[in-house]
Amino acid sequence: MEKRIYNFSAGPAVLPEDVLKEAQENLFALPGVGMSILEISHRSKTFDKIHNETKQELKSLLDVSDDYELLFLQGGASLQFSMVPLNLMPPKNKADYIVTGSWSKKAVKEAKRVGTVNIAATTESETFKRIPKQEELKLDPDAAYVHFTSNNTIYGTQWHKEPEVGNVPLVCDASSDILHKKIDVKKYALIYAGAQKNMGPSGVTFVIIRKDLVERSQDTLHTMLSYKTHVENNSLYNTPNTFGIYIIGLVAKWIKKLGGLDAMYKLNKEKADILYNCIDNSGGFYKGHAEKDSRSLMNVTFNLATEELEKKLISEASAAGFDGLKGHRSVGGLRASIYNAFPKKGVEDLVSFMNDFMKKNG
Amino acid sequence: MEKRIYNFSAGPAVLPEDVLKEAQENLFALPGVGMSILEISHRSKTFDKIHNETKQELKSLLDVSDDYELLFLQGGASLQFSMVPLNLMPPKNKADYIVTGSWSKKAVKEAKRVGTVNIAATTESETFKRIPKQEELKLDPDAAYVHFTSNNTIYGTQWHKEPEVGNVPLVCDASSDILHKKIDVKKYALIYAGAQKNMGPSGVTFVIIRKDLVERSQDTLHTMLSYKTHVENNSLYNTPNTFGIYIIGLVAKWIKKLGGLDAMYKLNKEKADILYNCIDNSGGFYKGHAEKDSRSLMNVTFNLATEELEKKLISEASAAGFDGLKGHRSVGGLRASIYNAFPKKGVEDLVSFMNDFMKKNG
Repeated sequence: MEKRIYNFSAGPAVLPEDVLKEAQENLFALPGVGMSILEISHRSKTFDKIHNETKQELKSLLDVSDDYELLFLQGGASLQFSMVPLNLMPPKNKADYIVTGSWSKKAVKEAKRVGTVNIAATTESETFKRIPKQEELKLDPDAAYVHFTSNNTIYGTQWHKEPEVGNVPLVCDASSDILHKKIDVKKYALIYAGAQKNMGPSGVTFVIIRKDLVERSQDTLHTMLSYKTHVENNSLYNTPNTFGIYIIGLVAKWIKKLGGLDAMYKLNKEKADILYNCIDNSGGFYKGHAEKDSRSLMNVTFNLATEELEKKLISEASAAGFDGLKGHRSVGGLRASIYNAFPKKGVEDLVSFMNDFMKKNG
Repeated sequence: MEKRIYNFSAGPAVLPEDVLKEAQENLFALPGVGMSILEISHRSKTFDKIHNETKQELKSLLDVSDDYELLFLQGGASLQFSMVPLNLMPPKNKADYIVTGSWSKKAVKEAKRVGTVNIAATTESETFKRIPKQEELKLDPDAAYVHFTSNNTIYGTQWHKEPEVGNVPLVCDASSDILHKKIDVKKYALIYAGAQKNMGPSGVTFVIIRKDLVERSQDTLHTMLSYKTHVENNSLYNTPNTFGIYIIGLVAKWIKKLGGLDAMYKLNKEKADILYNCIDNSGGFYKGHAEKDSRSLMNVTFNLATEELEKKLISEASAAGFDGLKGHRSVGGLRASIYNAFPKKGVEDLVSFMNDFMKKNG
């Protein structure tokens, strides 16, 4: 079996080895089916079962009520940046956006094509190193919805509790922390997430939408851009990414076997604590980018004293089998993405490596 | 190794066994990379190489000049039904559509949201059993483009030569016959295809666009709906379906090894001939839906005398390991989809089966 390395990539990202092994074993032909998952019709009984089981596992993990529909779309969060305002902004044509990083900004850009965007808060002047406090939010009680980004991959910040928005529908881009812990779905009107961080391979967008919201989707919308189309057709208006949905189903079963989202969260906290402790105990050799109360459990961002030292660390780490530690080009430094499937042993090994590096270069 | 059956599904459809075997072997970790193709960053050197090689293989197979860009998008042909008019219709805001089946009609529906659609020809009154003749086309020399569907999966018809449209840009939905033979790409302005029939798994839309066309994409377009975005970012504005692109690369290499598109076409013709000969020599027991000069090499559609007999054949065929022969719900009867990767032996075996069935029930 091919040797695997530690993959700190921000997404597409590491998947559970058990999931990869099962997918590999059955890739040539699904047991008892005689065809590969890559070949079966999206309207076949076999896929129907896979699709429904995947939905059921996710509904159960996240404890989603029947007031919501679960969709598997395409185009990533980037297409949702447009679909959300196109579907949900009318007829008020105004919405609140909380800006906590590059992805929120991209969401704002598309929303402005549809209507008026009120920036309820932004921490851009502080290099997005923190999540705004509840009392900073300038919310419009008449907004069509409030949009926020639950975890910011580039800056390594995360909302530890969703903003309180009263009766205004809450919309969340949860691409980079969906399924990392249990959330109270009832507080949300719509949650969307590109699958390629915590759920599966790239090419699937997971959407949880409260069913009553589809009433906002106007008939003038292009068919593929309307949530109504996808809700009414159970994500099968056209051919979905069948393989992606299959892998997401395997990932959901893996989380369930692990003990569900509470166990997942405990493990995520343990992993993040190991890494943040290393940073905090380095006497300033490693400097975390995010403020402590805004730290992400998924993406740990930090800097060293100089760019040269950062390059040296990345290069030596890469040679030692720690891949993908380079920070995003817009902030530099280092970033360790330690999503659900990233093994605790990998975090421990990285910390050993970082402590050694500090001794040699500190 | 799990036993495989004959898969006549219209899409997602059969893939070459060699491709499935290679993908399976490397699914846990790509050789020398230590990560699965499902886990690697779309901005990594590894994916960059896969992406560029896939493009290069397709460019070479289809003999595409540098005047064109090759894109891997998401959302299927159904999203292209909107993207084509949104990008290419302005400023004239009128386009010609040749209607040869359900998919052309869906393309028309979205185009009408953008501007004026001139139906240059339709064979709907003849149950789409044939492709219109050149002299039937009522083309507007001032149209923004002419749109046609090269192969009609539901009705089993196919254009054997693209329509002559003078200087008006020709746009083609080639979802169900892309790569089945060499075409003269220079005659086209834009070709799009859902990958899940002749190219790979579902969840990738392949687009060949003549670069000068992106000048038509207005800045007011939503970012993800603009061809300009994707051309300028080499399909990497956001995360593409990395696994799908990888499989498409393996499929392209498989065609090359087979001898390229001329060899592919020869094989496709042989396979279709075997099946059409069985129908034509059945003394009317099997009745082809399409007129002879409009017959598809990809989807062979036919009927029996009664619905009961059709059901009996489908049921007995299924029990004998021939899967997916039921015709589309909108036309009934039977459909054998015999795309590039469908083995010749499978067609021969089906014909044996059909001849036996005729003897017993004729």
